[in-house]
Amino acid sequence: MNQLTGNSDAIQGFLDSIDTFLFDCDGVIWHGDHVIQNVVNVLSQLREMGKKVLFVTNNSTKSRKAYLKKFVTLNIEAYADEIFGSAYAAAYYIKHTLQFPIDKKVYVVGMAGIQEELDSEGVRHVGSSADDENLHSMSDMSSIKNDPEVGAVLFGFDLNINYKKLAKAFTYLHHNKDCHFLATNSDLTFPAGGTVYPGTGALLAALSAPLDKKPTILGKPEPTMMEVIVNKYKLNRERTCMVGDRLDTDILFGHQGGLKTLLVMTGVTTAQGLEQTDIRPDFVIDSLGSLL
Amino acid sequence: MNQLTGNSDAIQGFLDSIDTFLFDCDGVIWHGDHVIQNVVNVLSQLREMGKKVLFVTNNSTKSRKAYLKKFVTLNIEAYADEIFGSAYAAAYYIKHTLQFPIDKKVYVVGMAGIQEELDSEGVRHVGSSADDENLHSMSDMSSIKNDPEVGAVLFGFDLNINYKKLAKAFTYLHHNKDCHFLATNSDLTFPAGGTVYPGTGALLAALSAPLDKKPTILGKPEPTMMEVIVNKYKLNRERTCMVGDRLDTDILFGHQGGLKTLLVMTGVTTAQGLEQTDIRPDFVIDSLGSLL
Repeated sequence: MNQLTGNSDAIQGFLDSIDTFLFDCDGVIWHGDHVIQNVVNVLSQLREMGKKVLFVTNNSTKSRKAYLKKFVTLNIEAYADEIFGSAYAAAYYIKHTLQFPIDKKVYVVGMAGIQEELDSEGVRHVGSSADDENLHSMSDMSSIKNDPEVGAVLFGFDLNINYKKLAKAFTYLHHNKDCHFLATNSDLTFPAGGTVYPGTGALLAALSAPLDKKPTILGKPEPTMMEVIVNKYKLNRERTCMVGDRLDTDILFGHQGGLKTLLVMTGVTTAQGLEQTDIRPDFVIDSLGSLL
Repeated sequence: MNQLTGNSDAIQGFLDSIDTFLFDCDGVIWHGDHVIQNVVNVLSQLREMGKKVLFVTNNSTKSRKAYLKKFVTLNIEAYADEIFGSAYAAAYYIKHTLQFPIDKKVYVVGMAGIQEELDSEGVRHVGSSADDENLHSMSDMSSIKNDPEVGAVLFGFDLNINYKKLAKAFTYLHHNKDCHFLATNSDLTFPAGGTVYPGTGALLAALSAPLDKKPTILGKPEPTMMEVIVNKYKLNRERTCMVGDRLDTDILFGHQGGLKTLLVMTGVTTAQGLEQTDIRPDFVIDSLGSLL
């Protein structure tokens, strides 16, 4: 593990060895609605050096286009095709990796981000906000029947999760052994307002528990997302660096994918946490803002 | 394992050894809305012999009073205090075993059965149908705060499960280490209309997954429910028999509780299933209707 903070020779060597940077956002680029000091300047200099930058997020509630608005609001230069969210990863995977048949459709539990990204890839889908209105009574249960046209269930964070959505997704997966079971990410919690709330992985457990199938997870740290990124952008893994603040998602994600890894100390990882972990980043720096 | 079918000596010996019968209902007494042949007659004769009968169900959506209506509709003699549902088990456990402080309240995820049984035991509660209206947007998340008055979360089947209920229950359990975590039962699915749908155990997984606590389960086959039944009715375990159609809930429940067990073949267990299991009932009979 190389400490880059205040070590300009080490920083120069690091920069020379990398062509593409994958950035986690919260805790690396910004904290909530505040950009971390000097990060805008660093990103701009990396672009000037000819480096490729990509922003990788497990947030599936927003499409790349919607997520871009956050960069615009914070005055950070970014482009839609530099943003790689788990909703888009799922849509790309369904279209290109699974080569999803055109006579099949995807049943979605999730929010607008997933619907928009499936539309962008031309994948037919049902569910999501169309099922926001729940069953009215136990006797409505019989209205939920298998639909052989559903070739995949894609599960993401859904503030409007309800029993109808869970029962439909369960029914398609339980009765159709060829139905793909996919999820945008498996984070058990997400941070908001100084605390944490149940995340996609928590809601997903309600669907997984009664099934004998396990989902393919598209988000960090799972290798499927890395395959999709490397495939789409034709990256050279050895000259690509994952930059993040979380050891068990970002750094593990980079490690498992054969990338270089840079840990920043502006997010959830503490000095003590770094001493005690088995997940060792290649490089560490106090802040992305200190890189240049 | 003693086969009682058609063996009147064995049946007589069995009846002489038992004072109290605990009956599972679906698959033993009835199939959906049809009473199994001769069961009404058998129950009536058991009463005439002076046997005590109790009906034990994991269904937490109905109170004992509401569940009694099913017996009335099907013309089966039964009394509210003979019915032992998981909602009542939970209420009794909270009141008598936990000796729940009067300045605390229970946060409920569940339906009317739980509310009514907590009322019957005089336990303060919040949540349940009062939280059927979900959060409207992600920014409403901040309205969910810890409430130090919540001394227990009780989770049962809830057709109106939503994110607000999950986030509240999670918040109380996550932030208050003394908050009891209870669930009425852990069945992953329940049967309806010839198929199965996600059950209490599935929904419960969404709450358990992000927590480092595991719930105390009040339903079959967990020993807590047995403790409550034995305690309330002052039963002699050796002279009590659990009668059921499921090896992994009813028969296991009886076994673990030190009761005698009688498997009936009118429900989910097949002859092949019985050959292959490690869970051996003490007695087996083709139908409860054949007992007398």
